[in-house]
Amino acid sequence: MKRELKFSKMEGTGMEKKTRVAIIGYGNVGKGVELAIEQNPDMELKVIFTRRKPDTLKIRSNAKVLCITEVDKYVNDIDVAVLCGGSATDLPKQGPKLASIFNTVDSYDTHAKILDYYVSVNEAAKKAGKTSIISTGWDPGLFSLLRVIEEIALPQGKCYTFWGPGISQGHSDAIRRIPGVKDARQYTMPIDTAVRRVRAGKNPELKTSEKHWRDCYVVVEDGADLKRIEQEIKRMPYYYADYRTVVTFISEKEMAERHSEMPHGGFVLRVGKTGECHKQLMEFRLELTSNPEFTGSVLAAYARAAHRLNKEGQIGAKTVFDIAPAYLSMKSLEELRKEVL
Amino acid sequence: MKRELKFSKMEGTGMEKKTRVAIIGYGNVGKGVELAIEQNPDMELKVIFTRRKPDTLKIRSNAKVLCITEVDKYVNDIDVAVLCGGSATDLPKQGPKLASIFNTVDSYDTHAKILDYYVSVNEAAKKAGKTSIISTGWDPGLFSLLRVIEEIALPQGKCYTFWGPGISQGHSDAIRRIPGVKDARQYTMPIDTAVRRVRAGKNPELKTSEKHWRDCYVVVEDGADLKRIEQEIKRMPYYYADYRTVVTFISEKEMAERHSEMPHGGFVLRVGKTGECHKQLMEFRLELTSNPEFTGSVLAAYARAAHRLNKEGQIGAKTVFDIAPAYLSMKSLEELRKEVL
Repeated sequence: MKRELKFSKMEGTGMEKKTRVAIIGYGNVGKGVELAIEQNPDMELKVIFTRRKPDTLKIRSNAKVLCITEVDKYVNDIDVAVLCGGSATDLPKQGPKLASIFNTVDSYDTHAKILDYYVSVNEAAKKAGKTSIISTGWDPGLFSLLRVIEEIALPQGKCYTFWGPGISQGHSDAIRRIPGVKDARQYTMPIDTAVRRVRAGKNPELKTSEKHWRDCYVVVEDGADLKRIEQEIKRMPYYYADYRTVVTFISEKEMAERHSEMPHGGFVLRVGKTGECHKQLMEFRLELTSNPEFTGSVLAAYARAAHRLNKEGQIGAKTVFDIAPAYLSMKSLEELRKEVL
Repeated sequence: MKRELKFSKMEGTGMEKKTRVAIIGYGNVGKGVELAIEQNPDMELKVIFTRRKPDTLKIRSNAKVLCITEVDKYVNDIDVAVLCGGSATDLPKQGPKLASIFNTVDSYDTHAKILDYYVSVNEAAKKAGKTSIISTGWDPGLFSLLRVIEEIALPQGKCYTFWGPGISQGHSDAIRRIPGVKDARQYTMPIDTAVRRVRAGKNPELKTSEKHWRDCYVVVEDGADLKRIEQEIKRMPYYYADYRTVVTFISEKEMAERHSEMPHGGFVLRVGKTGECHKQLMEFRLELTSNPEFTGSVLAAYARAAHRLNKEGQIGAKTVFDIAPAYLSMKSLEELRKEVL
C-alpha cells in the first residue's frame, strides 16, 4: 500500500531522485554494472571502491575511484552498493561488513554455503536498518526465480537447469594452474541427448555430469608434455573427472582471436503434467554474448529494488524470491499495468 | 518481515490450515482449477458456484455445487474465490461484486480494458478489506511477468510476444457463427520468418498480424457453399482480414479425432544489447497440450498468494507485478533458499 502511493506520486514526474550507486570491486562484473547504469536513467554511479591503487584504474564513467578502506565516509551519499567481488573469498567477508553500512546487492553463488551467507548478511543488515539482496545475477538469480515460477505452475513435474554453451571462469582457472599451461578456456556444454530426453517429458534422474560436457582450449609452453597435461585435466577431481572432457591445444593467436569473449547462457526447463495426461512444457532460456555484462545488468535492476525496499522499511537480507517484479522496473505500477500486462 | 515470521513458524509443521477455495464458473478453466487443486496439498476445494442448475453439473471432486446466488452465505468459509468466467461479459460484473465478498483471483484478459477493470475491482476489494489478484494465467499473467523480467535485465532492447501454435477460442467461435458452418477450430500460428528476424536481433517493428497467421479447420453443413464460407472467414474484420489465413474443410470425424484438444503456447522473446555491442537474448516459452488446465494451475498458485497477502493486510487489487515469487510457492522461504536458489 505504502509503496503504491509512493509510486503514483513520485514516479514519472521527473521529480524523483536518482538512485546513487557504489560499485565495490572493478573486475568484469563491476565493469558490467558500470555499463548497465548507463542504460538505467534513474540510477547514477557515484563511486567505485577498489582494493587496487585508485589512480591505476582506468574507468569508463565519471565516477570517483576510491580505496575500499574509505567506504565508511560514504554512508550518507550512497543508496545502494553493488558488491562485485568473488564468492570464494571476497563476499563472505565483504557481504556482512558492507551490509552494515549500505543497502547492498551481490551475486554470491557458492550454492552450498548460501544459507550461512544469508544468515550473516541478514543479521548485519537488520542491525543497521539496511536492505541486502543476495545471490542475484542469472544463476543464482533469474534462473532461481524461473525455477520457482515453473514449479508453482506445474507442481507435478521436474525442473532441469542446463548451463552453456559458455565460459566457466572457475574451470578455466583450474586448467591454468597446471604446470606447462600458459592459458586456457573451458566451455560448459549441455549434452544434447540429455536435453532431448527432458524435452520429451521422460523426467530422467540426471546428475550435473550427465547433463554437461566440458570443452577445453589450452595454450601450452614450448616443449610441454601435451599427453600429461591432457591427463591432468581429465583426471582433475570435481572439475573434470566426472565429465566427458575434450581437450584441444591451440596457439596463443587462436586463443586471442577466437576465445576472448565471455559468452554464456543456459536454460531452466520443466516438463510437468496437469490433469490425467496433459504434458506441459515451460522453458526460460538465456543466450548471452557477455556473461559479466548481463550479470551487471541484472544486479543494477536489483539495486533499484534494494533501495526501494529500504525506503519502505523492508530491511534485512532478501533473495529474488522476496522481490515483487514491480520493484525491479523503472516503470511505475500504473505504466506496467498499462503497457506490459 | 511479518510474513517471514509467519512462514517460519507455521509452514512445514503440518499445523497450518489449508487454503479453502471456491470456483466460480465450471467451464474449461474452472475444471482446470479443480484439477490443479489436487496437485496442491495445501489447498482444498470447498465449493463450486454455477449459474446452471447445480444438480446438472458432473464434477470430479467432492466439492459442493451451489447456485451462484448463494455466494453471500460463504463469506466466512472461503479463503479465496477463483473467478473462471469469461472476460467479455462475466468478469466485468462478477469481478467487482465478488471482490467485495471474497479474496479473488481471475484471468481477465481484455487488454484494452484492464485499467478500468483494475480500478473497479480495487475499489470494491479495498472497501471490503479483501485482496484480488487480477489478470493472472499465462497471458496476461506469466507472460506479463516475463516481459518485465526481460525488460529490467535488458533495458536496451525490444520485447516480442508470439502466440501459438494453439487454439484460440474467440477466433474459433467467430467462424462458427457463419451460416453453413457446423464446427470450427482456429490455430494461431507464429510466422517463422518473423521469429527468425527477432532472434537475429534485428528488433523489427511488427504488428500482431505480421507475427502470426491463422490456420482454420471447418466442418460445414451438407451442401454449404465452401467458397462463400472461405471468403467470409478471410474477410472478417479484426479476426481474420489482416492475417494470412488458411481454411481447410474437414469432416466431423476428423474434427473429433484430430482437433479435440486445446493446445496452446508461445514465447516472450527479447534481444537486447549491453555495453557497446554485446547481443543478449532472453526467452520464455510455453508448450501446452491443455491451455485451460495450465491456466487453472497458474490461477491456483495465485490464489495461494491472494490468501497470504490478505492475511498480511495487503488489500486491494493486485497484478502479477505486485507478487513476490515466494507468495506463490508451497515451499517456505527457508526451503526456497535451500532448494531452489
